[in-house]
Amino acid sequence: MENSRYKYLDKIDSPADLKKLSIDELYILCDEIRDMLIKTVSQNGGHLSPNLGTVELTVAMHYVYDLPKDSIVWDVGHQAYTHKILTGRRDRMSTIRQKGGLSGFPKRSESKYDAFNVGHSSTSISAAYGIARAKALKGDNSRTVAVIGDGALTGGLAYEGLNNAGRSPKNFTIILNDNKMSISKNVGSMAKYLTHIRITPGYIKVKKAVEKVLLHTPLIGNPIRSLLLNSKSKLRISVYRNTIFEDLGFVYYGPVDGHDIRKLIHALNASKNVTQGVLIHVITKKGKGYSFAENDPKSYHGVGKFDIDTGEPLSSRKGYSARFGEIMCDFAGKDEKLCAITAAMQSGTGLSGFARKYRERFFDVGIAEEHAVTFASGMAAQGMIPVFAVYSSFLQRSYDQLIHDAAAQDLHIVLGVDRAGIVGDDGETHQGVFDVAMLNSIPNATVYSPCYFDELKADLDRAIYHDTGIAAVRYPRGGEPFRPLDYRSGGVCTVYGSGKAAVLVTYGRLFANAVQAAQVLRDKGTDITIVKLELIRPIPEEAVETAASFDRVYFFEEGIEQGGIGETFFMRLRDHGFKGSFELTGIKDRFVPQSTVDEAFADLGLDCAGMVGKLTWN
Amino acid sequence: MENSRYKYLDKIDSPADLKKLSIDELYILCDEIRDMLIKTVSQNGGHLSPNLGTVELTVAMHYVYDLPKDSIVWDVGHQAYTHKILTGRRDRMSTIRQKGGLSGFPKRSESKYDAFNVGHSSTSISAAYGIARAKALKGDNSRTVAVIGDGALTGGLAYEGLNNAGRSPKNFTIILNDNKMSISKNVGSMAKYLTHIRITPGYIKVKKAVEKVLLHTPLIGNPIRSLLLNSKSKLRISVYRNTIFEDLGFVYYGPVDGHDIRKLIHALNASKNVTQGVLIHVITKKGKGYSFAENDPKSYHGVGKFDIDTGEPLSSRKGYSARFGEIMCDFAGKDEKLCAITAAMQSGTGLSGFARKYRERFFDVGIAEEHAVTFASGMAAQGMIPVFAVYSSFLQRSYDQLIHDAAAQDLHIVLGVDRAGIVGDDGETHQGVFDVAMLNSIPNATVYSPCYFDELKADLDRAIYHDTGIAAVRYPRGGEPFRPLDYRSGGVCTVYGSGKAAVLVTYGRLFANAVQAAQVLRDKGTDITIVKLELIRPIPEEAVETAASFDRVYFFEEGIEQGGIGETFFMRLRDHGFKGSFELTGIKDRFVPQSTVDEAFADLGLDCAGMVGKLTWN
Repeated sequence: MENSRYKYLDKIDSPADLKKLSIDELYILCDEIRDMLIKTVSQNGGHLSPNLGTVELTVAMHYVYDLPKDSIVWDVGHQAYTHKILTGRRDRMSTIRQKGGLSGFPKRSESKYDAFNVGHSSTSISAAYGIARAKALKGDNSRTVAVIGDGALTGGLAYEGLNNAGRSPKNFTIILNDNKMSISKNVGSMAKYLTHIRITPGYIKVKKAVEKVLLHTPLIGNPIRSLLLNSKSKLRISVYRNTIFEDLGFVYYGPVDGHDIRKLIHALNASKNVTQGVLIHVITKKGKGYSFAENDPKSYHGVGKFDIDTGEPLSSRKGYSARFGEIMCDFAGKDEKLCAITAAMQSGTGLSGFARKYRERFFDVGIAEEHAVTFASGMAAQGMIPVFAVYSSFLQRSYDQLIHDAAAQDLHIVLGVDRAGIVGDDGETHQGVFDVAMLNSIPNATVYSPCYFDELKADLDRAIYHDTGIAAVRYPRGGEPFRPLDYRSGGVCTVYGSGKAAVLVTYGRLFANAVQAAQVLRDKGTDITIVKLELIRPIPEEAVETAASFDRVYFFEEGIEQGGIGETFFMRLRDHGFKGSFELTGIKDRFVPQSTVDEAFADLGLDCAGMVGKLTWN
Repeated sequence: MENSRYKYLDKIDSPADLKKLSIDELYILCDEIRDMLIKTVSQNGGHLSPNLGTVELTVAMHYVYDLPKDSIVWDVGHQAYTHKILTGRRDRMSTIRQKGGLSGFPKRSESKYDAFNVGHSSTSISAAYGIARAKALKGDNSRTVAVIGDGALTGGLAYEGLNNAGRSPKNFTIILNDNKMSISKNVGSMAKYLTHIRITPGYIKVKKAVEKVLLHTPLIGNPIRSLLLNSKSKLRISVYRNTIFEDLGFVYYGPVDGHDIRKLIHALNASKNVTQGVLIHVITKKGKGYSFAENDPKSYHGVGKFDIDTGEPLSSRKGYSARFGEIMCDFAGKDEKLCAITAAMQSGTGLSGFARKYRERFFDVGIAEEHAVTFASGMAAQGMIPVFAVYSSFLQRSYDQLIHDAAAQDLHIVLGVDRAGIVGDDGETHQGVFDVAMLNSIPNATVYSPCYFDELKADLDRAIYHDTGIAAVRYPRGGEPFRPLDYRSGGVCTVYGSGKAAVLVTYGRLFANAVQAAQVLRDKGTDITIVKLELIRPIPEEAVETAASFDRVYFFEEGIEQGGIGETFFMRLRDHGFKGSFELTGIKDRFVPQSTVDEAFADLGLDCAGMVGKLTWN
């Protein structure tokens, strides 16, 4: 990629360079950008389809707007690669999503052209509106723009933003990037509604014609005329007001072909003259320009490295998500009460098979984690067993609903917490490092953290059929870690080894690192015992008793320390009169930046070497 | 009240009794219910205006629906007193909001007529939809109804519910209880939009007339006719589709006068025949039937005991909220960057004065805590200093936004966390006992927990002008607790007393109980030291050092133990080589039911007696 030579792109070091090109040249530039996008993502992994869909839109925006004076907030941010390429970061695109490299998402610390950090969905309108109101207070007349996909519009936060930003002052624009799907096929009424607007592109023109006829044609019949005279304002309402966005106080403009640069530039320029908030409805094609992605945008939404010519991923092994989906199908086949819920992550959470086989019991609620939990609680109140499969970092959205709608009335809902722990290259916003502390604070919640697939199944069985209230099973991104030949799960807690020198307590996949560390220590003459928790809340009595019999207890936790299980474990040791030394190694009051998972483990002292270091005293 | 004799109400022991009455008798019944509501709330405190507004609606619903077969989910639930009165709980209304008495909100454990627990806003559509989908899977044809106010409709969760329930199966009804305000005057575009529907009640009729004329009148002019023929479906769209609710897939019916029982019954019955989800738009008057409440529904939304004849509260003293508002005004007068944000709690959070004096810098975002934090983060990115004043239990809604939008990009936003700790009579759903654990898990957050007004001001000053990132100041409902004459704040940490027997560590208003406990212990010959934290995150070094010098450390915490400051404090003691005994008294993995604050303290062992008990060893 470093050797690519692009006629136009190579000369774009800032948006100012872009403005010098003709429209025809901009089209060629878009081809060059697409080439770069495909090469970059094929080598580094990342988000492909969303970025391919927004090339022309991004070029048009930088052509019309004046960044960094004007501010753009990209919703989610997985479509901002072109923006990065055009704002002085072209040469560093090969480092994207790698340790120390460019982030896969906009980041204020990375560039003055990035107005707001993103990663989670549906934040852009709220953030942009905050920026716009602050600018207004400061007398700053520059423009603020939120770019939001139709998928993100299923999130309640986006609606709260719309409700507040409606009838907003000038210089505020929302660009609705409508690609007819988000990550999965879009769900809900808003999606159907957008389809309705989309398939009748002419109707605004028609509306204008009707209006003209009604208002200006002398030939009009008396019945109409008298109705008009008697209730003009009322009729106006039913003729003028057409889209929800107008109802919510925006000037609606669209739909605009999102791959037609001329039309885009025209629309963006036109919106500058409107003295009110504007919503520009742009239609784009996800995956545009790469046939594999165009034909299957879902599979190319977020990808690992792949072969450009065949579109085939360069590596793949069965992950926890896929296994979770299989187990759910197994259970559902035997139990008509079992339902599965996802917040727009059908494929990501491994539920595609379930969705096909048990369609009536599968609910994709859109990017709406709050609703997912309250909806699940409603189902549980009627005796169903809802399992909400959700990425750990997105579950943060449901904290209040978990407390208020599920736990406080002791309703039995099950959480499949995917991507729990370090996720790696997506960085700070996607690390699953808060779910344990979050769930730990919720009364009577039960939490499992299996290490291997057989444990995942056993723990799901416990959570679904043996627990009450909230029961969560959390598992990491990716596949099974190293498994020692002699390991067999002892149930909710396993004591592994019988060394007397110290005890290492951990849970989840860190057990694999612990086993390796124990081996290294044994080779050095230090024999330790490992206490492996599978149930982490409540902490099994056996685990505490075992640990309390040692003088040295080392706890390793792939999550934030404050509020995590390590602190609670230490409190429990105290109940047993423990007076020895306790050392906790987890994530200390910080965010974890992007890198590979192994790099993060090494940085955090959670890899084999880090464990060996901690357990080597004097 | 127990001596009241109501001609009709005294005979209503279940909804079946209600169905025997004539419409005219139902009106008298409503008068009797209102009388009971006013008497009950004047004696126990509680929600008055919302309950007075929904008397006829509730009577009509029980007249038409068949509970408990049919299910009603009341949004927030502060309007469900009439429902309680009509469903066998009439005789216990005098116990409402008291320890062991009826809850102020619907509760499944209290009655089979309560389909779902509520308390927080905007959950009803999601929960009811969950119930409805579960019923459909079970082949249960009964009806499920969500009753939601226009205020609750500003919350994103309600929109997520609408988006999912739209185009829902039959037997699903949403009743929009539109009283033109929620707790404060309603804000945002949706409120304006509802006003628009409301003030043009005839326009649906007009629309039908237009349509009839257009479609059936032979006199119609050629231009219209040709347009119709050429683009019939397009014109239909602009004539038929009128409300957002129809756009989202509901059959819209309304507006209906919410105090006209005949019309209400007609509308509810009519909706039963619709084979699709229905939204019935009902207009009610908040505070209806009690002149003081009608004229000032906001002040009578939630009240303490009051005199029925004068409407005057029976007791009042200045609370933290009022003092917070004054301090905010002080600061704002000197600093143009300071902004205040509330999520529909202008009056409750003490910000009414600020809203009047600094209108441009005051933002009521509606019941939208998620948006409030992301919006604040946007303002902070532009250098403003936003202070979000919010009740502790509602802040739970913002957990992800705090992590993702504020903390992860180190934006400086300030939280005024009101009603922190035990709130008392509103019960489980409103206790502010999770905010500490929640904030404790967020990297680099700063949290203060003052005990007295002067500390509130000092801590706000620190949070606003000396800290970075998220800085929260949390303070309880009500006024200042007991203050010893010799007490002066030593800043973020105060060592009070110099006894050697033990150290008692605490924060917030529990200090007042601790001082009293120390006195009792001294009288018994045990002299202790109190370490009072004002800054609880990060824990001041001085506090840990002081505590570590004792053999016995007792930590008292008005919040959930798991993830709270007590656990973290114990970890810090370990860093200092502490080998003594540590005892933590907080809220142990449970919800705290309704009672007075003092009763809750006694139950939890957080009152003077509880502390003395813990600190009495032999």
